[in-house]
Amino acid sequence: MKQGITQSPYTFTGDDIAGEGLKTGLRTLGDLAGIFADEKAYAAMDKGITAYNVKSIEPDPQGTRGGLYMGITYLESGKVGDEYFMTKGHFHLNPLSTEFYWGVKGEGMLILMDEERNVWAEKMFPGSLHYIPARVAHRVANTGDETLVFAACWPSDAGHDYGTIARDGFARRLLDVNGKPELV
Amino acid sequence: MKQGITQSPYTFTGDDIAGEGLKTGLRTLGDLAGIFADEKAYAAMDKGITAYNVKSIEPDPQGTRGGLYMGITYLESGKVGDEYFMTKGHFHLNPLSTEFYWGVKGEGMLILMDEERNVWAEKMFPGSLHYIPARVAHRVANTGDETLVFAACWPSDAGHDYGTIARDGFARRLLDVNGKPELV
Repeated sequence: MKQGITQSPYTFTGDDIAGEGLKTGLRTLGDLAGIFADEKAYAAMDKGITAYNVKSIEPDPQGTRGGLYMGITYLESGKVGDEYFMTKGHFHLNPLSTEFYWGVKGEGMLILMDEERNVWAEKMFPGSLHYIPARVAHRVANTGDETLVFAACWPSDAGHDYGTIARDGFARRLLDVNGKPELV
Repeated sequence: MKQGITQSPYTFTGDDIAGEGLKTGLRTLGDLAGIFADEKAYAAMDKGITAYNVKSIEPDPQGTRGGLYMGITYLESGKVGDEYFMTKGHFHLNPLSTEFYWGVKGEGMLILMDEERNVWAEKMFPGSLHYIPARVAHRVANTGDETLVFAACWPSDAGHDYGTIARDGFARRLLDVNGKPELV
């Protein structure tokens, strides 16, 4: 039984999250096979390069209704051909689940796609706050020259459906067109 | 239909949250009648003083399953007798709902009580992250000399049960005992 004055087992300093049961996940360029348009450029790159790192605090078991998780993603700067480094992207397995993202450092783009495959994007920057509605797939691209750091909070029964995006992709791609990001 | 590159309607800079449909709530000392132990000291104070302000972004309607809200609370420094200024405190109406709190500025204490009325507290400070489990009432006290600022993320179907705490209170109080906060 908890009692008295204690310290929480978690810390969140804006650009870092830490504490009891911290989960970490690393995605190298090799883990992102098939998601970039320019397959020749991809083939020529070092697959061991880090694309992104995710750290998360997940106090309740996956699937717990009413529970919440919080995490930080560090997405590296880089391009495969004209396409910015980006996360795999996913729908939530639980179609009702939403999510908050907020920009902490660097510049990027939150790419969103609804179930009718309409695609749009929101600029990410330090202080930008994004609400990802239910039934909307999401992926983040780093459009800047430094690591993009963003935080997230999502329900512990959201789950991740990576398969749909791995199979069908997003209906539009974010490319560097004459030095500016455009949805193509 | 959304399309193209847009800007999110929300911002979150750590100590402020703003944007489309922002909700704000002000609690004066007068709104906190009955929650402090020292009724004489309370009676003598100006009821118009601000105790705390809450700003929140609530994109989906209250009660939406899978939705999330995010907010910032500004809790003023002060005491009623030996008891620190504090929030009303509540259980969630939906007993499964959890919540994240995180400290942004100032010093305080997150006071927690389970359904068996066991009470404990976690120190709040810039960078502290707190997970409020299901079925645990929560209230925050400002133990410092400046405004305590903390952020929160909670499910939009959590709801607030203020009535139980208004009627029964917490089983222990956080008092200033010789200049140090103690659960009494």
